[in-house]
Amino acid sequence: MDWLDQVKWDADGLVPVIAQEQGTKDVLMFAWMNREALAATAARGQAVYFSRSRKRLWHKGEESGHYQEVHDMRLDCDADVVLLSVTQHGHEPAIACHTGRHSCFFQRFDGLQWQTVEPVLKDPESIYR
Amino acid sequence: MDWLDQVKWDADGLVPVIAQEQGTKDVLMFAWMNREALAATAARGQAVYFSRSRKRLWHKGEESGHYQEVHDMRLDCDADVVLLSVTQHGHEPAIACHTGRHSCFFQRFDGLQWQTVEPVLKDPESIYR
Repeated sequence: MDWLDQVKWDADGLVPVIAQEQGTKDVLMFAWMNREALAATAARGQAVYFSRSRKRLWHKGEESGHYQEVHDMRLDCDADVVLLSVTQHGHEPAIACHTGRHSCFFQRFDGLQWQTVEPVLKDPESIYR
Repeated sequence: MDWLDQVKWDADGLVPVIAQEQGTKDVLMFAWMNREALAATAARGQAVYFSRSRKRLWHKGEESGHYQEVHDMRLDCDADVVLLSVTQHGHEPAIACHTGRHSCFFQRFDGLQWQTVEPVLKDPESIYR
Protein backbone atom coordinates (compact mmCIF):
# COMPACT_ATOMS: atom_id res chain seq x y z
CA MET A 1 0.00 0.00 0.00
CA ASP A 2 1.27 3.46 -0.91
CA TRP A 3 2.35 5.46 2.16
CA LEU A 4 0.14 8.34 1.01
CA ASP A 5 -2.87 6.02 0.97
CA GLN A 6 -2.21 5.09 4.58
CA VAL A 7 -3.03 8.64 5.64
CA LYS A 8 -6.70 9.10 6.51
CA TRP A 9 -7.48 12.28 4.61
CA ASP A 10 -10.50 14.20 5.89
CA ALA A 11 -13.64 15.02 3.86
CA ASP A 12 -11.76 17.91 2.22
CA GLY A 13 -8.76 15.70 1.39
CA LEU A 14 -6.64 17.31 4.10
CA VAL A 15 -4.66 16.24 7.14
CA PRO A 16 -3.67 18.45 10.10
CA VAL A 17 0.07 18.99 10.47
CA ILE A 18 2.09 20.06 13.52
CA ALA A 19 5.57 21.50 12.96
CA GLN A 20 7.95 21.03 15.90
CA GLU A 21 11.44 22.53 16.05
CA GLN A 22 14.07 19.80 16.16
CA GLY A 23 16.48 21.28 18.67
CA THR A 24 14.20 23.07 21.12
CA LYS A 25 11.17 20.82 20.55
CA ASP A 26 9.05 24.00 20.49
CA VAL A 27 5.77 23.61 18.64
CA LEU A 28 6.17 26.26 15.95
CA MET A 29 2.94 26.13 13.98
CA PHE A 30 -0.05 24.14 12.84
CA ALA A 31 -1.23 23.90 9.24
CA TRP A 32 -2.83 21.53 6.74
CA MET A 33 -1.60 19.36 3.89
CA ASN A 34 -3.37 17.65 1.04
CA ARG A 35 -1.91 14.58 -0.67
CA GLU A 36 0.12 16.67 -3.11
CA ALA A 37 1.56 18.80 -0.30
CA LEU A 38 2.63 15.79 1.75
CA ALA A 39 4.22 14.17 -1.31
CA ALA A 40 6.04 17.45 -2.11
CA THR A 41 7.23 17.77 1.50
CA ALA A 42 8.73 14.28 1.38
CA ALA A 43 10.29 14.87 -2.05
CA ARG A 44 11.87 18.28 -1.27
CA GLY A 45 12.70 17.78 2.39
CA GLN A 46 11.03 21.14 3.04
CA ALA A 47 7.55 21.78 4.41
CA VAL A 48 4.91 22.34 1.75
CA TYR A 49 1.45 22.98 3.17
CA PHE A 50 -1.96 23.48 1.62
CA SER A 51 -3.36 26.94 2.21
CA ARG A 52 -7.08 26.63 2.91
CA SER A 53 -7.62 30.36 2.42
CA ARG A 54 -5.73 30.59 -0.86
CA LYS A 55 -6.74 27.06 -1.92
CA ARG A 56 -3.31 26.20 -3.25
CA LEU A 57 0.00 24.63 -2.25
CA TRP A 58 2.03 26.85 0.00
CA HIS A 59 5.75 26.22 0.15
CA LYS A 60 6.45 27.66 3.60
CA GLY A 61 9.00 30.45 3.14
CA GLU A 62 8.12 31.13 -0.50
CA GLU A 63 7.51 34.81 0.36
CA SER A 64 9.25 35.23 3.71
CA GLY A 65 12.34 33.09 3.03
CA HIS A 66 11.54 31.38 6.33
CA TYR A 67 11.44 27.84 5.00
CA GLN A 68 11.39 24.68 7.07
CA GLU A 69 13.85 21.84 6.58
CA VAL A 70 12.08 18.60 7.44
CA HIS A 71 14.09 15.98 9.33
CA ASP A 72 11.38 13.59 10.33
CA MET A 73 7.71 12.93 9.62
CA ARG A 74 5.44 11.01 11.93
CA LEU A 75 1.86 9.81 11.64
CA ASP A 76 -0.40 9.32 14.65
CA CYS A 77 -2.24 6.20 15.83
CA ASP A 78 -5.37 7.03 13.83
CA ALA A 79 -3.30 7.95 10.76
CA ASP A 80 -5.04 11.31 10.55
CA VAL A 81 -2.47 13.76 11.97
CA VAL A 82 1.15 14.39 10.83
CA LEU A 83 3.98 15.65 13.05
CA LEU A 84 7.04 17.22 11.41
CA SER A 85 10.40 17.69 13.06
CA VAL A 86 11.91 20.76 11.38
CA THR A 87 14.69 23.30 11.36
CA GLN A 88 13.24 26.75 10.82
CA HIS A 89 15.55 28.65 8.44
CA GLY A 90 15.79 32.21 7.14
CA HIS A 91 16.29 34.19 10.32
CA GLU A 92 18.27 33.90 13.52
CA PRO A 93 16.62 33.45 15.99
CA ALA A 94 14.14 31.34 14.04
CA ILE A 95 10.82 32.84 12.96
CA ALA A 96 7.97 30.50 12.06
CA CYS A 97 5.03 32.87 12.56
CA HIS A 98 3.77 35.42 10.05
CA THR A 99 3.62 37.93 12.91
CA GLY A 100 7.42 37.81 13.09
CA ARG A 101 7.50 35.65 16.21
CA HIS A 102 9.37 32.42 16.87
CA SER A 103 6.24 30.31 17.28
CA CYS A 104 2.61 30.86 16.37
CA PHE A 105 1.63 29.87 19.91
CA PHE A 106 2.48 33.17 21.56
CA GLN A 107 -0.82 33.85 23.37
CA ARG A 108 -0.90 32.32 26.85
CA PHE A 109 -4.04 31.90 28.93
CA ASP A 110 -3.54 33.65 32.28
CA GLY A 111 -6.80 32.48 33.85
CA LEU A 112 -8.84 35.37 32.51
CA GLN A 113 -7.61 36.08 29.00
CA TRP A 114 -5.07 35.27 26.32
CA GLN A 115 -1.90 37.31 26.87
CA THR A 116 0.82 37.81 24.28
CA VAL A 117 3.99 36.44 25.87
CA GLU A 118 6.47 36.19 22.98
CA PRO A 119 8.33 39.08 21.35
CA VAL A 120 8.20 40.07 17.69
CA LEU A 121 11.67 39.22 16.35
CA LYS A 122 11.25 40.99 13.03
CA ASP A 123 8.66 43.45 11.75
CA PRO A 124 6.26 41.49 9.51
CA GLU A 125 6.22 44.49 7.12
CA SER A 126 9.87 43.82 6.39
CA ILE A 127 9.31 40.07 6.08
CA TYR A 128 6.59 40.29 3.42
CA ARG A 129 7.78 42.99 1.06
CA MET B 1 -14.45 40.06 25.39
CA ASP B 2 -14.75 36.61 26.90
CA TRP B 3 -11.60 34.51 26.38
CA LEU B 4 -13.74 31.72 24.93
CA ASP B 5 -15.14 34.14 22.34
CA GLN B 6 -11.59 34.99 21.23
CA VAL B 7 -11.16 31.44 19.96
CA LYS B 8 -12.12 31.07 16.30
CA TRP B 9 -14.27 27.96 16.44
CA ASP B 10 -14.61 26.11 13.13
CA ALA B 11 -17.89 25.42 11.30
CA ASP B 12 -18.54 22.51 13.69
CA GLY B 13 -17.81 24.64 16.74
CA LEU B 14 -14.47 22.91 17.32
CA VAL B 15 -10.83 23.87 17.67
CA PRO B 16 -7.82 21.56 17.10
CA VAL B 17 -5.75 20.91 20.23
CA ILE B 18 -2.14 19.73 20.56
CA ALA B 19 -1.04 18.20 23.87
CA GLN B 20 2.67 18.52 24.60
CA GLU B 21 4.39 16.93 27.58
CA GLN B 22 5.80 19.58 29.91
CA GLY B 23 9.12 18.00 30.83
CA THR B 24 10.15 16.22 27.63
CA LYS B 25 8.29 18.57 25.25
CA ASP B 26 7.16 15.46 23.36
CA VAL B 27 4.00 15.98 21.34
CA LEU B 28 1.72 13.38 22.92
CA MET B 29 -1.51 13.64 21.00
CA PHE B 30 -3.88 15.72 18.94
CA ALA B 31 -7.60 16.07 19.57
CA TRP B 32 -10.49 18.54 19.37
CA MET B 33 -12.37 20.72 21.84
CA ASN B 34 -15.65 22.53 21.66
CA ARG B 35 -16.38 25.57 23.79
CA GLU B 36 -17.66 23.49 26.70
CA ALA B 37 -14.56 21.25 26.61
CA LEU B 38 -12.16 24.20 26.66
CA ALA B 39 -14.07 25.82 29.51
CA ALA B 40 -14.02 22.51 31.42
CA THR B 41 -10.29 22.09 30.79
CA ALA B 42 -9.60 25.53 32.23
CA ALA B 43 -11.89 24.95 35.20
CA ARG B 44 -10.58 21.47 36.16
CA GLY B 45 -6.95 21.89 35.18
CA GLN B 46 -7.24 18.58 33.33
CA ALA B 47 -7.69 18.01 29.62
CA VAL B 48 -11.29 17.59 28.54
CA TYR B 49 -11.68 17.03 24.82
CA PHE B 50 -14.68 16.66 22.52
CA SER B 51 -14.89 13.23 20.94
CA ARG B 52 -16.00 13.65 17.34
CA SER B 53 -16.81 9.93 17.01
CA ARG B 54 -18.83 9.72 20.25
CA LYS B 55 -20.13 13.30 19.89
CA ARG B 56 -19.67 14.06 23.57
CA LEU B 57 -17.20 15.53 26.04
CA TRP B 58 -14.32 13.20 26.74
CA HIS B 59 -12.42 13.71 29.97
CA LYS B 60 -9.10 12.20 28.94
CA GLY B 61 -8.39 9.32 31.32
CA GLU B 62 -12.04 8.74 32.28
CA GLU B 63 -11.67 5.08 31.26
CA SER B 64 -7.91 4.53 31.21
CA GLY B 65 -7.01 6.57 34.28
CA HIS B 66 -4.42 8.27 32.07
CA TYR B 67 -5.52 11.82 32.68
CA GLN B 68 -3.62 14.95 31.72
CA GLU B 69 -2.82 17.71 34.16
CA VAL B 70 -2.79 21.01 32.26
CA HIS B 71 -0.11 23.53 33.20
CA ASP B 72 -0.41 25.97 30.36
CA MET B 73 -2.74 26.75 27.47
CA ARG B 74 -1.71 28.70 24.42
CA LEU B 75 -3.60 30.01 21.42
CA ASP B 76 -2.00 30.50 18.02
CA CYS B 77 -1.73 33.65 15.90
CA ASP B 78 -4.98 32.96 14.06
CA ALA B 79 -6.75 32.04 17.32
CA ASP B 80 -7.84 28.73 15.83
CA VAL B 81 -5.45 26.18 17.39
CA VAL B 82 -4.78 25.47 21.09
CA LEU B 83 -1.54 24.08 22.53
CA LEU B 84 -1.60 22.46 25.98
CA SER B 85 1.42 21.85 28.16
CA VAL B 86 0.55 18.77 30.22
CA THR B 87 1.76 16.15 32.64
CA GLN B 88 0.49 12.77 31.54
CA HIS B 89 -0.59 10.83 34.66
CA GLY B 90 -1.75 7.27 35.41
CA HIS B 91 1.26 5.24 34.34
CA GLU B 92 5.02 5.41 34.59
CA PRO B 93 6.45 5.87 31.99
CA ALA B 94 3.63 8.09 30.74
CA ILE B 95 1.07 6.71 28.30
CA ALA B 96 -1.01 9.15 26.25
CA CYS B 97 -2.00 6.85 23.37
CA HIS B 98 -4.89 4.39 23.40
CA THR B 99 -2.50 1.83 21.87
CA GLY B 100 -0.55 1.83 25.16
CA ARG B 101 2.30 3.93 23.80
CA HIS B 102 3.85 7.11 25.21
CA SER B 103 2.81 9.29 22.27
CA CYS B 104 0.27 8.87 19.49
CA PHE B 105 2.99 9.82 16.98
CA PHE B 106 4.74 6.46 16.88
CA GLN B 107 4.77 5.87 13.12
CA ARG B 108 7.85 7.33 11.44
CA PHE B 109 8.22 7.80 7.68
CA ASP B 110 11.36 5.99 6.53
CA GLY B 111 11.27 7.22 2.93
CA LEU B 112 9.02 4.43 1.71
CA GLN B 113 6.49 3.73 4.42
CA TRP B 114 5.34 4.51 7.97
CA GLN B 115 7.25 2.36 10.44
CA THR B 116 6.22 1.83 14.06
CA VAL B 117 9.15 3.06 16.13
CA GLU B 118 7.79 3.29 19.68
CA PRO B 119 7.11 0.38 22.04
CA VAL B 120 3.80 -0.54 23.64
CA LEU B 121 4.28 0.24 27.34
CA LYS B 122 1.09 -1.47 28.51
CA ASP B 123 -1.32 -3.83 26.78
CA PRO B 124 -4.39 -1.77 25.74
CA GLU B 125 -6.59 -4.73 26.77
CA SER B 126 -5.50 -4.17 30.35
CA ILE B 127 -5.92 -0.38 30.07
CA TYR B 128 -9.55 -0.49 28.90
CA ARG B 129 -11.13 -3.18 31.02
